[in-house]
Amino acid sequence: MKKYNVAVVGATGMVGSKFLEVLSEKNLPVDNYYLFASAKSAGKVIDFMGKPHTVIELKEENVTDKHIDIALFSAGGGTSAQFAPVFARHGAVVIDNSSQWRMDKDVPLVVPEVNPQDIAWHNGIIANPNCSTIQAMVALRPLQLKYGLKRIIYSTYQAVSGAGVAGYNDLLEGLKAFVNGGEYATKKFPYAIANNCLPHIDVFSDGGYTKEEIKMIKETKKILGDESIKVTATTVRVPVLNSHSESINIEFNKPCTLEGILEAFRSQSGLVVVDDVKSNKYPMPADATGHDEVFVGRIRLDDTVESGCNIWCVADNIRKGAASNAVQIAEYMIYNAPELIHGAK
Amino acid sequence: MKKYNVAVVGATGMVGSKFLEVLSEKNLPVDNYYLFASAKSAGKVIDFMGKPHTVIELKEENVTDKHIDIALFSAGGGTSAQFAPVFARHGAVVIDNSSQWRMDKDVPLVVPEVNPQDIAWHNGIIANPNCSTIQAMVALRPLQLKYGLKRIIYSTYQAVSGAGVAGYNDLLEGLKAFVNGGEYATKKFPYAIANNCLPHIDVFSDGGYTKEEIKMIKETKKILGDESIKVTATTVRVPVLNSHSESINIEFNKPCTLEGILEAFRSQSGLVVVDDVKSNKYPMPADATGHDEVFVGRIRLDDTVESGCNIWCVADNIRKGAASNAVQIAEYMIYNAPELIHGAK
Repeated sequence: MKKYNVAVVGATGMVGSKFLEVLSEKNLPVDNYYLFASAKSAGKVIDFMGKPHTVIELKEENVTDKHIDIALFSAGGGTSAQFAPVFARHGAVVIDNSSQWRMDKDVPLVVPEVNPQDIAWHNGIIANPNCSTIQAMVALRPLQLKYGLKRIIYSTYQAVSGAGVAGYNDLLEGLKAFVNGGEYATKKFPYAIANNCLPHIDVFSDGGYTKEEIKMIKETKKILGDESIKVTATTVRVPVLNSHSESINIEFNKPCTLEGILEAFRSQSGLVVVDDVKSNKYPMPADATGHDEVFVGRIRLDDTVESGCNIWCVADNIRKGAASNAVQIAEYMIYNAPELIHGAK
Repeated sequence: MKKYNVAVVGATGMVGSKFLEVLSEKNLPVDNYYLFASAKSAGKVIDFMGKPHTVIELKEENVTDKHIDIALFSAGGGTSAQFAPVFARHGAVVIDNSSQWRMDKDVPLVVPEVNPQDIAWHNGIIANPNCSTIQAMVALRPLQLKYGLKRIIYSTYQAVSGAGVAGYNDLLEGLKAFVNGGEYATKKFPYAIANNCLPHIDVFSDGGYTKEEIKMIKETKKILGDESIKVTATTVRVPVLNSHSESINIEFNKPCTLEGILEAFRSQSGLVVVDDVKSNKYPMPADATGHDEVFVGRIRLDDTVESGCNIWCVADNIRKGAASNAVQIAEYMIYNAPELIHGAK
């Protein structure tokens, strides 16, 4: 089998480290891994796949000579805007975790269990969707195929790991202060997140919606390939370190049954139904962390519409919501469509 | 002014203690306060309103001789089922915080800022709604009056204080163990609530909805006096000690505007608009605790329906969601309708 050169860009951040963890769990046919980061982290040595890797400074001259086939980016929108085209020009297909390219009409936005067919039309860059969108897609796709989606209402319960190391520490240090009776001034969040909920993720836009809410709305339509689906969202940060939860109300185009919904969910790759309320079984962030599957439960028909349901959907936002989804896109191409592993044409 | 004899039944529990706190902040025209509790707590002396009160055992012979005018109950459904009629028979109007009488067609279910007119038809018992319902009512009523309510979708973020002292301790002790690296086995919740979300409040019913969700659905219609309103709910416990938050999606019967919604909210007694996202102002549980008002923000038009909006609503679930609402019902009668202070006819 052909072997590939793989770059991880932004290897020292929260999602970047998770990229390395997820990659190290797999045995992908890789010749060389190149770990890139900003000048600040360059030179640092990271033990990865059983050997030391020196972190390479992210600049074009360090990209040109490496024959990189696949570049996994997790380095923020600005860096992706600047460097994804550089990697693509030098022959790599970039899988980018930032929001920079997601809504670009020439960039596919991909959840491999949902719309792998969109990978085919990439032109050097494939976008990894927003964490809160990814998990919802895995649950919604089988329902879309079976019943058609008319309207979706998201209310999210998002973990602090989605806000990076600084957000993670804001909760961890905040909880320590809370328990020990001290004070802690948050660095990432505008207010304490320990013992609190913040209905505020990413910046506010006109109309009062946050960018996170707008991402969920727009990305849902793009991934599901149907601009006619009505989507609205309220996104909220909760004092949980990892794994996002979502309360989703769904209205269908066609009549549904509970058994039909369950069947659709059970047929969906990457989705696990945890819904046995008589035994107190339902998805929870504490159980989802460390897994690549999306968990769905609390499945109830909603009799306030002609055909609809309520569900509760949980996934590890750093794994399935970011690193694992990106690596799965790479895996999909390696094993199912190696002809798609190329840069800009 | 006439002075009244007031009983607090279940005076030693979490909500019962809050009844005493709320009462002590007011200067109601009261002759005597009688504090009742189970045999277990009887004889205990509680310092209240500047003097010691001996807790009286809850049994009929201790009720007969006291000429109680108003009895505030917070003692669980079973106790209310047994003793509310006893107090009512002996001349008291009972304001009951349990779920026992809420859906009884002969018992008004009252939020004083919303449907005080319903107090008039009581027959010795008035029910205090469920905590998560009360706060939503204060936000929804002005919208109902202005635009008519077609459909409501609740997703809740509920604090552990709603699960009583044991639930409160489950989070507090769980956080200590979490921060210090120890183990804590929850006593009230089926799973850890520290660093977790449980989509499970109260017991599960047929159809998969919890009793908490069914309460929100049924009580909303009863309080707003309109069985035609479509209501659905997903209720979730989050790791917050106090104050419930709610993401509410609302569909109206008539066309709305953002300015009109704001105007309606600002005209509603007991409701405070906190919605200046450019300055990061929105309601949060950390800010709501200790207050009797309901806070509403993140007010956004929802363009996925002809006329609708998304809101975020927060209130102290032990104060406005329980004790304060009950005391406000008593206050309303004392100052506005003393002729309604009587037991069963």
